[in-house]
Amino acid sequence: MRTTYPELLERFTGILERRGMAPARARACSTLFADATRDGVATHGVNRFPVFVGQIDQGDVQVNAEPVLVSAWGAFERWDGQFGPGNLNAVRCMDRAIELAREQGVGALALRNTNHWMRAGSYGLQAAAANCIGICWTNALAAMPPWGGRDARLGTNPFVLALPGDPPVLVDLAMSQFSYGKLEEYRLRGDRLPVAGGYDGEGRLTDDPAAIEATRRMLPVGYWKGSALSMALDMIAAALAGGHSVVDLSTKFPRETGVSQVFIAFAMDRLGPWEETVARIKEDVRASLPAEPGAAVRIPGERSAAVRAAHDRDGILVDDRIWTRLENL
Amino acid sequence: MRTTYPELLERFTGILERRGMAPARARACSTLFADATRDGVATHGVNRFPVFVGQIDQGDVQVNAEPVLVSAWGAFERWDGQFGPGNLNAVRCMDRAIELAREQGVGALALRNTNHWMRAGSYGLQAAAANCIGICWTNALAAMPPWGGRDARLGTNPFVLALPGDPPVLVDLAMSQFSYGKLEEYRLRGDRLPVAGGYDGEGRLTDDPAAIEATRRMLPVGYWKGSALSMALDMIAAALAGGHSVVDLSTKFPRETGVSQVFIAFAMDRLGPWEETVARIKEDVRASLPAEPGAAVRIPGERSAAVRAAHDRDGILVDDRIWTRLENL
Repeated sequence: MRTTYPELLERFTGILERRGMAPARARACSTLFADATRDGVATHGVNRFPVFVGQIDQGDVQVNAEPVLVSAWGAFERWDGQFGPGNLNAVRCMDRAIELAREQGVGALALRNTNHWMRAGSYGLQAAAANCIGICWTNALAAMPPWGGRDARLGTNPFVLALPGDPPVLVDLAMSQFSYGKLEEYRLRGDRLPVAGGYDGEGRLTDDPAAIEATRRMLPVGYWKGSALSMALDMIAAALAGGHSVVDLSTKFPRETGVSQVFIAFAMDRLGPWEETVARIKEDVRASLPAEPGAAVRIPGERSAAVRAAHDRDGILVDDRIWTRLENL
Repeated sequence: MRTTYPELLERFTGILERRGMAPARARACSTLFADATRDGVATHGVNRFPVFVGQIDQGDVQVNAEPVLVSAWGAFERWDGQFGPGNLNAVRCMDRAIELAREQGVGALALRNTNHWMRAGSYGLQAAAANCIGICWTNALAAMPPWGGRDARLGTNPFVLALPGDPPVLVDLAMSQFSYGKLEEYRLRGDRLPVAGGYDGEGRLTDDPAAIEATRRMLPVGYWKGSALSMALDMIAAALAGGHSVVDLSTKFPRETGVSQVFIAFAMDRLGPWEETVARIKEDVRASLPAEPGAAVRIPGERSAAVRAAHDRDGILVDDRIWTRLENL
């Protein structure tokens, strides 16, 4: 099924309004889902939308709840998401971090009791669009063993860095080498992963996506390194937010709600001519000798900008099963 | 040669004083080198000390230069390191970030024109000792190809996260899967790397340390992920500091001086009972089923705390060639 961005946005908005979400909120929430889809992140866009509606129907997501300020310390504030829609809560918090950054150079928020924010990169792009550097991360249900262990104790805890630009620079990375969505994608295509992504039933590293889906022993990015990073990101988010950690979530909220997040913004307005510095970095990296004939080095964020342009030109292909689910929501 | 922490500290201090470093500074600078050695990070402690002295002798490190404030925006300040000793500059900047955090909840500094800060984790531990979360990173000379490229364009740009604790939680990770120091260590022992660490002469991933040293095609941590992260960390550090990027360093300062760094601190004093949250995370992660019989999951920072205790008990083993170099400085 091929659709367009405006059609997708209308459909999402109607479904959310029928769930009682206030019209302006339904529009804003739907825009985030449609934007993710348009940028090629369907896993946190159209493909995820039916799951999000399910969370509303189960009562895990409170459609009209808004985040509230818990405490303020100057350039750092703690907020409570009141179990509202994760993407709207995150936008509100990055907005506030941007406001603080404009006053104080840097602004930081920690948010507790929120829901899955869908595409992590959204809030980095939001900061970049406001001429800020954006840094943010979230914790999540346990989905990956720590290095040295075999059962899931760590969240994939996506971590985002973004800088203003055209297109903005956007690093949006989960702490697992591949997401479950990616494993499924490779399996359905009958492909092997480009590099090992986890362990098979015999405890050997493998590039077979089905074997990893079976053991659920995903590999942390960089082995021990991503394992350590995932732990520390969880600790910092839960401690700063006074919120739930990965283990708290896994025991209290096995359907995943009540996660903790951090949002940091740096205002770029008064920094002087930083654009040339960043342009030189991009130029230098692009000038790399290709690893293989035809290979190119990409600046993070370029690919999703290119996918967005293609989607605006050619329309957006949506899986027929997903489309049918949308029609029944 | 087996030595002790006090003996090492005395020796370093004497050498730096003979280079004209003011006594209190020589002591502080030497303490950082001795602490790194004591924690098992000899590559940025005793083994690196002769290189640092060489940088002084070449005029790249100004022994008595102190960092100065360039601009202040509230909770964020830009400093200039005046090409002083990298570790002393970094301590000064993390100290200032901690001060700002105590006033404003969060404090951030960007530092330009500084030198290699030696052990990255030092400044995370410094924040943790002051009851702060510490986040910091640096750029560095190009040492690693970006993903898709074959020549070195990226710095290993170590990134640090730390939380207070006993021992503190410390994640200190370079953006390459292994450092050149580690490759050498494995080669000298005649060992293979535990996982692939780069490319051989035929462009294949390899766990042979000598082959990687020959091609200098180190693997970024998590392949495309560490490559993207390294780029963005460089962009943010250079832009915030108004300083040199990896490409600027590689063209202007091929002996590596004038690097850019970022320091962020969050004060924990008024956050409420975050310690229990972090304790639950540690406990849960330690309870993992072992990947192999006898394997254990470590909390980042535990190993260096254990090495420190062993060194205080048994003394510190220093390579004889390094000791001879120290005796001639």
